[in-house]
Amino acid sequence: MKRTGVTAARGFRASGVSAGIKKTGPGNEEKDLALVAADVTASVAAVFTKNLVQAAPIGVCRKHIAASGGRARAIVVNSGNANACTGAVGREAAMRTAVEAAGLLGVAVNEVLVASTGVIGQTLPVDLLLQALPEAVNGLSADGGSDAARAIMTTDTRTKQIALTVETPDGQYTVGGMAKGSGMIHPDMATTLAFVTTDAVVESGVLNDCLKQAVDVSFNRISVDGDTSTNDMVAVMANGVSGVKVQGEASTSVFLNGLTKVLTHLAKEVVRDGEGATRLVTVEVSGARDDNEALKVSRTVSTSPLVKTAVYGADANWGRIVGAVGRAGVDLDPAALTVSICGLEVLSPGYRSDYSEADAGRLMKADEVVISVDLGQGVGFARTWTCDLTHGYIDINASYRT
Amino acid sequence: MKRTGVTAARGFRASGVSAGIKKTGPGNEEKDLALVAADVTASVAAVFTKNLVQAAPIGVCRKHIAASGGRARAIVVNSGNANACTGAVGREAAMRTAVEAAGLLGVAVNEVLVASTGVIGQTLPVDLLLQALPEAVNGLSADGGSDAARAIMTTDTRTKQIALTVETPDGQYTVGGMAKGSGMIHPDMATTLAFVTTDAVVESGVLNDCLKQAVDVSFNRISVDGDTSTNDMVAVMANGVSGVKVQGEASTSVFLNGLTKVLTHLAKEVVRDGEGATRLVTVEVSGARDDNEALKVSRTVSTSPLVKTAVYGADANWGRIVGAVGRAGVDLDPAALTVSICGLEVLSPGYRSDYSEADAGRLMKADEVVISVDLGQGVGFARTWTCDLTHGYIDINASYRT
Repeated sequence: MKRTGVTAARGFRASGVSAGIKKTGPGNEEKDLALVAADVTASVAAVFTKNLVQAAPIGVCRKHIAASGGRARAIVVNSGNANACTGAVGREAAMRTAVEAAGLLGVAVNEVLVASTGVIGQTLPVDLLLQALPEAVNGLSADGGSDAARAIMTTDTRTKQIALTVETPDGQYTVGGMAKGSGMIHPDMATTLAFVTTDAVVESGVLNDCLKQAVDVSFNRISVDGDTSTNDMVAVMANGVSGVKVQGEASTSVFLNGLTKVLTHLAKEVVRDGEGATRLVTVEVSGARDDNEALKVSRTVSTSPLVKTAVYGADANWGRIVGAVGRAGVDLDPAALTVSICGLEVLSPGYRSDYSEADAGRLMKADEVVISVDLGQGVGFARTWTCDLTHGYIDINASYRT
Repeated sequence: MKRTGVTAARGFRASGVSAGIKKTGPGNEEKDLALVAADVTASVAAVFTKNLVQAAPIGVCRKHIAASGGRARAIVVNSGNANACTGAVGREAAMRTAVEAAGLLGVAVNEVLVASTGVIGQTLPVDLLLQALPEAVNGLSADGGSDAARAIMTTDTRTKQIALTVETPDGQYTVGGMAKGSGMIHPDMATTLAFVTTDAVVESGVLNDCLKQAVDVSFNRISVDGDTSTNDMVAVMANGVSGVKVQGEASTSVFLNGLTKVLTHLAKEVVRDGEGATRLVTVEVSGARDDNEALKVSRTVSTSPLVKTAVYGADANWGRIVGAVGRAGVDLDPAALTVSICGLEVLSPGYRSDYSEADAGRLMKADEVVISVDLGQGVGFARTWTCDLTHGYIDINASYRT
């Protein structure tokens, strides 16, 4: 038995089945329905998209978390259809999903969360989903993490999972999770779908605080294409099965650290598998007047199509980096800038460094490219992640629906 | 003799020659040095990039316009090298260009403007430029508009020129211009390079006001890729040769109208010839609470890579449009949205319209695609222009320098 991702922590089971929502042709059914269930009631916290256009399941999740006082037993996720911009019909479909799952699991309706991902604006074939729910419930297993991770994929090329064990003076617990990408990904919210489980004992208020902090430095620091989705959500469930309590400053900080590691790994995986991506790009900005300004500059570089295409071409075109820095809305002195690419300094304050384009090009042909910008003003620092902009991105998005 | 673009108005001459700044191989010399000269001293007004990283010529132009009190005789433009991020050496090169041109033309140094466009961060081969200047001066001609328009091109696939005659009770005058694109193009400034000439009599204060207003609804409404350049500038020279005076509300409004038409044409041409573009996209937003909010929404849709790739694929994926609308930072009711593509309603308030995807796809295969969004809140309206995001954009930008 292999306990991975969302089933790595004790007391969680998961499954992934095919409900026929993704249309992949007869005899070629892809998994498109995931279920994650806690054996006992868990604390839950979630952050949602800040897009004003929100998919139906987001509304159901908000309502249920409020009604249950931050407790949950299960999350139902479908891929292939976002159930967004689907009006009253969509809201009813999301609600019916929660009701049906609650009945099959024998739990309260408001302890079930729902999430959808896929094409916007098409009616969710909810009957297909409901027909497949019993199979998902019966299939729940402690080694179902990978099946669930597969079932939430859309244009992802691989599953994204991680689990880590946290050692504490009181014993150990596990934090594990899964995520899906890979277009419409941008900071300013809980980007994309990610689900984390832990068997630590965490009160829902603490869970909520930790989730917000962890998302802020992980999922809110990535961008694939600057587009934010109607369905983004990151949720974490803590079922307490390990008996190890997270309370007080020290143990909360240990838990936050573990949660941040899990979410950062998943966030970077999402970028690495961004639509058409061939390279993971880390943009580090130092020397800003404060962290906030560093973040602004880092995000502007991360989202520049010209920088992203230059990385695709392994072209150390630092002029584009400087161009992005200059329009970030942060007051700075262009003559004080230092820019390095993969550790090679290409711009020293005021003038081009003495470097070889061939060396720079060679360094940039790696799977991971690090762009470092020093503003020369102070000690503010921030790091964001993005991917290169490639022919593959165009291929995928010029024909996603058809 | 064909008087086009910047030489359509009387009393202007132009030329375009090859200085060898663009490296296109032996025996294959492209024009890369343009000169526009007024026979008599002209009023001048210009708007510049708001990027904090500004190319050396921008500084020279600001200084000269201030020192001359808004008067100019000539503009020297090179393509192939942006002379940006080139430190003191770059500033000296821009200044030497102005000094040398002034000497050859027999005019005051501060009556010469300079502009550069091309790769950032490489030393301008100013000696090549200066060697070619006499040829540019000797070649000045009243039918040199097209040569000049060709010499300012970078990744443009064609020249961008227009001229129109304005009839007034006091007689007629001409407004003509040229522009170059076609990457690093985004609103929030005088985007890209554009030069306009007119033989109307316009005092430099009035010229300045009119230019700002005209740029705001033309060049500041276009986006190719969201990146703003270090070199952007739009300048207009009025030499008064027609004797027709622009003064007072009525005649200023007529002039503003003509100038706006010229700049809007050039701006749309820039987008239509955006890097890799196959379609011009107009994004009209109505029903906003005010024009400003409409503009915010329109810009967010215009700059969405997912919308732009959907247009490339002729895919009426209005979910992406709605997703962009929802993250525009404007308070709105998603259930009140109406979306039409090329006149075909695809989303009525709250739900998908009853339309055929085949029809929508056929409509979107046109050269021009109009996306209309009604927010259903008020009478605010705005229009922006963009192009589709294509394989061609990636081709060009992954290998621009090499």
